[in-house]
Amino acid sequence: MDTLSQLKTAIDQFAKDRDWGQFHTPANLAKSISIEASELLECFQWSETDYSLDAVKEELADILNYCIRMASVMELDIAAIVLDKLEKNANKYPVSKSKGNSMKYDKL
Amino acid sequence: MDTLSQLKTAIDQFAKDRDWGQFHTPANLAKSISIEASELLECFQWSETDYSLDAVKEELADILNYCIRMASVMELDIAAIVLDKLEKNANKYPVSKSKGNSMKYDKL
Amino acid sequence: MDTLSQLKTAIDQFAKDRDWGQFHTPANLAKSISIEASELLECFQWSETDYSLDAVKEELADILNYCIRMASVMELDIAAIVLDKLEKNANKYPVSKSKGNSMKYDKL
Amino acid sequence: MDTLSQLKTAIDQFAKDRDWGQFHTPANLAKSISIEASELLECFQWSETDYSLDAVKEELADILNYCIRMASVMELDIAAIVLDKLEKNANKYPVSKSKGNSMKYDKL
Repeated sequence: MDTLSQLKTAIDQFAKDRDWGQFHTPANLAKSISIEASELLECFQWSETDYSLDAVKEELADILNYCIRMASVMELDIAAIVLDKLEKNANKYPVSKSKGNSMKYDKL
Repeated sequence: MDTLSQLKTAIDQFAKDRDWGQFHTPANLAKSISIEASELLECFQWSETDYSLDAVKEELADILNYCIRMASVMELDIAAIVLDKLEKNANKYPVSKSKGNSMKYDKL
Repeated sequence: MDTLSQLKTAIDQFAKDRDWGQFHTPANLAKSISIEASELLECFQWSETDYSLDAVKEELADILNYCIRMASVMELDIAAIVLDKLEKNANKYPVSKSKGNSMKYDKL
Repeated sequence: MDTLSQLKTAIDQFAKDRDWGQFHTPANLAKSISIEASELLECFQWSETDYSLDAVKEELADILNYCIRMASVMELDIAAIVLDKLEKNANKYPVSKSKGNSMKYDKL
């Protein structure tokens, strides 16, 4: 079975078991992703290099969990939106201009 | 081909083409996820219900993009970390206590 | 005139002139602070040391702007809440345990 | 004594007592502000209206604490940067165009 479908099924079941669908509006899930993203950032708050790998795994997992849930609730196809955006990013960051530098597209 | 593997391949190639591996440290990717998460949140800044679906798709895609990239750079297995964390969350949020309420585990 | 009072007056007037009080609920202001905080973080996205001072000034100002606005809307006394929290932090981080290290209080 | 100066003095002393100046780089403080902003957002994660006032006070205070600290470390004049930015925002959001609506300046 496809990995993403498998994760989606497990994550949706988790919410269903707890009757959490009522809380999982797009806005609340966007807040939740942002909150979990900050918990990941906290792993690197005082040092960029000295971090707990276990904490990183857990926090990255929580972000992915909410992202997959949000896509499910909003009936978005993750592969489609990621590949579409990658194509848009390719136009914003042409290889010729952005190779080897990290400048934002509006500065290129 | 598995969807996640396909996305990982496309995302890694995008970075490789631009020689961006040098910028993609775990700490920088954590910051990037947090920054993109706020752009998603911005879709709901002044209203929880009146949002642009196109903007949501793009911002959610950018977060997923960086999450998949971070897992790739750190050689983490996304399915494994998400399912592991879901199991931990199941212990923190037993159905009997959390069904139908959104309280944080330390308040249950 | 006290600096904070002066800033509060200018910030409240700015919102009043635009009839923005209707959008400035506590929840929307919390989202706004988080969004602006990410814009500040973006100044350091790819480098901790090579940043634009002008951009930092603008983004830090936007965060302060929304914080002062939120305190005003919720009728909170900034000096009181900051000093109260500093006292709580002093208990969580006693000098004897936290001097010279950046560990979180629950690890001390 | 001016309130902001008083808070700055207390906040700087708190850091000095713990020898935390070494951790308080601009980049680390930007991360810290973002992390605390998410803790404030967490007060409104599942409801926009049912929140703990005490929690809001504490989290808003932590954000202000780090903002004041960042301004101190970078020797920025808070009143000057906030009033400067307010003036820039007044140009981006002229009353005639933005009165009563919450649209972003690039959509006005």
